[in-house]
Amino acid sequence: MTPRTLPGFYASALVLALSAGAVQSDTLADYMDFFEPLPHLPPIPADNTMTPEKIELGKMLFFEPRISASGVISCATCHNPALGWSDRIPRAVGHGGQVGERNTPTVLNSGFLESQFWDGREPDLEGQALGPIQADIEMNMTLAEAIERLKAFEIYRQHFAEAFPDDPDPINPGNVALAIATFERTLNTPNSPLDRFLRGDVQAMTGRQVEGMKLFVDAGCVACHGGPALTDSNFHRFELPGSRDEGRFLVTGDEADRFAFRTPTLRNVAVTYPYFNNGSVDNLHDAVQLMGQQMLGQDFTEEELDSLVDFMHALTGEMPRVEIPALP
Amino acid sequence: MTPRTLPGFYASALVLALSAGAVQSDTLADYMDFFEPLPHLPPIPADNTMTPEKIELGKMLFFEPRISASGVISCATCHNPALGWSDRIPRAVGHGGQVGERNTPTVLNSGFLESQFWDGREPDLEGQALGPIQADIEMNMTLAEAIERLKAFEIYRQHFAEAFPDDPDPINPGNVALAIATFERTLNTPNSPLDRFLRGDVQAMTGRQVEGMKLFVDAGCVACHGGPALTDSNFHRFELPGSRDEGRFLVTGDEADRFAFRTPTLRNVAVTYPYFNNGSVDNLHDAVQLMGQQMLGQDFTEEELDSLVDFMHALTGEMPRVEIPALP
Repeated sequence: MTPRTLPGFYASALVLALSAGAVQSDTLADYMDFFEPLPHLPPIPADNTMTPEKIELGKMLFFEPRISASGVISCATCHNPALGWSDRIPRAVGHGGQVGERNTPTVLNSGFLESQFWDGREPDLEGQALGPIQADIEMNMTLAEAIERLKAFEIYRQHFAEAFPDDPDPINPGNVALAIATFERTLNTPNSPLDRFLRGDVQAMTGRQVEGMKLFVDAGCVACHGGPALTDSNFHRFELPGSRDEGRFLVTGDEADRFAFRTPTLRNVAVTYPYFNNGSVDNLHDAVQLMGQQMLGQDFTEEELDSLVDFMHALTGEMPRVEIPALP
Repeated sequence: MTPRTLPGFYASALVLALSAGAVQSDTLADYMDFFEPLPHLPPIPADNTMTPEKIELGKMLFFEPRISASGVISCATCHNPALGWSDRIPRAVGHGGQVGERNTPTVLNSGFLESQFWDGREPDLEGQALGPIQADIEMNMTLAEAIERLKAFEIYRQHFAEAFPDDPDPINPGNVALAIATFERTLNTPNSPLDRFLRGDVQAMTGRQVEGMKLFVDAGCVACHGGPALTDSNFHRFELPGSRDEGRFLVTGDEADRFAFRTPTLRNVAVTYPYFNNGSVDNLHDAVQLMGQQMLGQDFTEEELDSLVDFMHALTGEMPRVEIPALP
């Protein structure tokens, strides 16, 4: 059994161990040590260096609906900048109004995740980018036709040449993925109340948010929701009412992965409702309660839920300011 | 026969008269007199004063997909800021992927038009705004449910109260229309090369654009494409290959209106392709050629077409800078 397929009862054991440790951490500083401020940029892969030209091209492609079969769906349709770079509906609506199986994850801070999609089937943003373009219930496009459409525009020929100056034939699917991934790595939300608090601004969080932060550690939430993006990027099983989605199992075929999903980031969780793989829970109170019951075997009191939810609101960072590109 | 239903042969007669007049206008200043720079704002109706609060609310509503049945289509889906506030596909794609009958007109400078929609069935932007929300092939929403959804958000309750401070129950369809129309009246594109040229910057247009401008007058295009938005806001018949759309006739039932459509603005025509009521012509060369043949009974030479098309490019103004709103 690898750490990436940690089932519920093992997770609970780990959580108990961590909780026990946390009980001894009675100074605020000890609690704060469980967290780290969000860096302004995630790790940049060596084989996809970040350049202004790639960011600009990636932004254009992210907003480009002509790489969908209908000509009206872009990445930004479901990852809508007005809606926390997600869509705020339970399950994604794509080509021809088809409704998918899963809730749209936010693109915000996605460069900090160690795998992509709810089931982690792609290791990175480069691997993720071309999926929705081709999925028949999303953009329903062949890559060949997408490339053909892009090649028809002089402005794209120019931008691809600038972004990939060493490539003699730069308009190709691989470069589309590299550019979109590069743009997405700029979509981070630093300076949330938690980040400012961790950096020493004691006024940045309310008293109840600080209480929530402590409880988040003491109860064991931080066992899975740790690291800069508040996710371990690992897969955990739980029973979500109304969901028959087998999750990670569909990728690995490993029985231990049945109904397991990658821990979602809690960064900006207050503005990226509804929650869970099928988007069936539309408020933080119920989401935190369900997590307590399922992952920690614990029924939080209403007071505890209130402080945990308040702490969730301290995880909303500064939204990236993105100017809508002028497309050809 | 009223001027609003001017049929082709009458228009041709008027055009000939204007052309004859233009022949005598041999100085550049005389040609320039046919045009006027685009004001920064269109006329503001007395019963819908422009306030910052209404603009802000209208912007939120314009980008708000929850006022569509699917939850993913907003005004900005078809009137996409990245695509000249239109969609750059022949005919609009709406709810469930349904394709409409007509090409999406740009919202840019739409406050300068004296009627709205291709068939002019609404007199103003206030009248236009609620149409697409309810159309079953567009956003497919009842106004009652749209209002209910908006009322659920505290932020909307706040913004409506600020925008309509004298209204005890401000979240209602009428106010939605007032706010969206107010926002749309800010979406203007001043300072195009033509505007700067008219204001005295002789370098703002190329030599061939100036030739195109003269020909635009001499050939009679300006007869219908005059005024600040380069449209007379009147209805004219013409035979568009592939279109059986009866246009204005569907509104008035007047035989003279069969196949008549409102003259579209030529402002930003280079970035609002494809053209005509069914979007069947995707380039300016062919669009100008067709107009010459149909409306002016004239086959422009390739050289004439080149200069007219170049002049069309001088009609692209400064795009409004709109920050994507943060929706609740």
